[in-house]
Amino acid sequence: MPYVHLRVTREGVTREHKQALIAGITDLLVRVLDKKPSQTFVVIEEVDTDNWGVAGLTVTQLRTLERRGLE
Amino acid sequence: MPYVHLRVTREGVTREHKQALIAGITDLLVRVLDKKPSQTFVVIEEVDTDNWGVAGLTVTQLRTLERRGLE
Amino acid sequence: MPYVHLRVTREGVTREHKQALIAGITDLLVRVLDKKPSQTFVVIEEVDTDNWGVAGLTVTQLRTLERRGLE
Amino acid sequence: MPYVHLRVTREGVTREHKQALIAGITDLLVRVLDKKPSQTFVVIEEVDTDNWGVAGLTVTQLRTLERRGLE
Amino acid sequence: MPYVHLRVTREGVTREHKQALIAGITDLLVRVLDKKPSQTFVVIEEVDTDNWGVAGLTVTQLRTLERRGLE
Amino acid sequence: MPYVHLRVTREGVTREHKQALIAGITDLLVRVLDKKPSQTFVVIEEVDTDNWGVAGLTVTQLRTLERRGLE
Repeated sequence: MPYVHLRVTREGVTREHKQALIAGITDLLVRVLDKKPSQTFVVIEEVDTDNWGVAGLTVTQLRTLERRGLE
Repeated sequence: MPYVHLRVTREGVTREHKQALIAGITDLLVRVLDKKPSQTFVVIEEVDTDNWGVAGLTVTQLRTLERRGLE
Repeated sequence: MPYVHLRVTREGVTREHKQALIAGITDLLVRVLDKKPSQTFVVIEEVDTDNWGVAGLTVTQLRTLERRGLE
Repeated sequence: MPYVHLRVTREGVTREHKQALIAGITDLLVRVLDKKPSQTFVVIEEVDTDNWGVAGLTVTQLRTLERRGLE
Repeated sequence: MPYVHLRVTREGVTREHKQALIAGITDLLVRVLDKKPSQTFVVIEEVDTDNWGVAGLTVTQLRTLERRGLE
Repeated sequence: MPYVHLRVTREGVTREHKQALIAGITDLLVRVLDKKPSQTFVVIEEVDTDNWGVAGLTVTQLRTLERRGLE
């Protein structure tokens, strides 16, 4: 009965991506730990780029810097 | 000072449901662990059915299969 | 398929307490949201009092102040 | 590589607040634990006041009581 | 920069299992979402069977019932 | 009433570090969001290096590679 919580920034994660992630993580838990799929929960949480920080900046700020770096 | 985090799929959870869950969980913690209600946090997180997986499928996929099973 | 995560300080929570909390939270979810018990996860996490802070102090510090206040 | 998850009620947290929180928490982890900012994640989750409970009531209920108390 | 948190009961998860889970989840995020491995965190939390509840019982209680069912 | 959950690897975090982190985060929330310290929870979770993965490896594996790189 694993519970997997996956957090990613809200940057273009499609329905198909979510299906692939849920199927892939569940398969992995079956193969590695022999867990029952029916008792394996996988939850995906999408986080706005204003709400995710790395290196002391929000991802919104980082993306702006990255775009300027490309100009 | 318990912190309780409750995740459910976003499938019709009303304001009254949330009030009943918060009151019920707080009462339980008072009865079982003698905790102070004023220092007991209960947070409810509603998750889209595309974002919750069980048995390797999203809940959206499962609900579709369930409806077909009823046809 | 709710997932409930309950965090409390590691201060005398017994096996019986855990059983009562798990049974109580599951019953509540059945009554309020008509959820299936077999697909309701409840996880209890006990946290050392050095690792839990409130009012800017650790619970260890707070308990020390409380004891002094009683002397 | 710390991961910090900050939950607050959705009550007027601005973009600038988020930037200040992310920068402040990252600086603190550098100063106290000498952690690398580039490997320090800070995620802010805003919770609706209907979904956050304290003292057995939702924050929405509490704010209503507070406003009545002021009338 | 995904953050994945995997909770499982503390029932024989070995070091090699953990390595396989961390490598597998990271590969999946590279394939599905083209994420950078260097900025992908995977954390595994093992939970005592007294602290994990399903169907209103602790996993310790469930395992006892399962063993009795086999006698 | 913020709830802050800080996860770090179990690599020498002392009691004094924890006190400084709890005090620092609480102060930050007072300054930035004018939150009440008495209703601000900060929880620190220490994770074994076998249980934390980055770049597809456990931190235990990474530290071994780092030490070899220094030889």
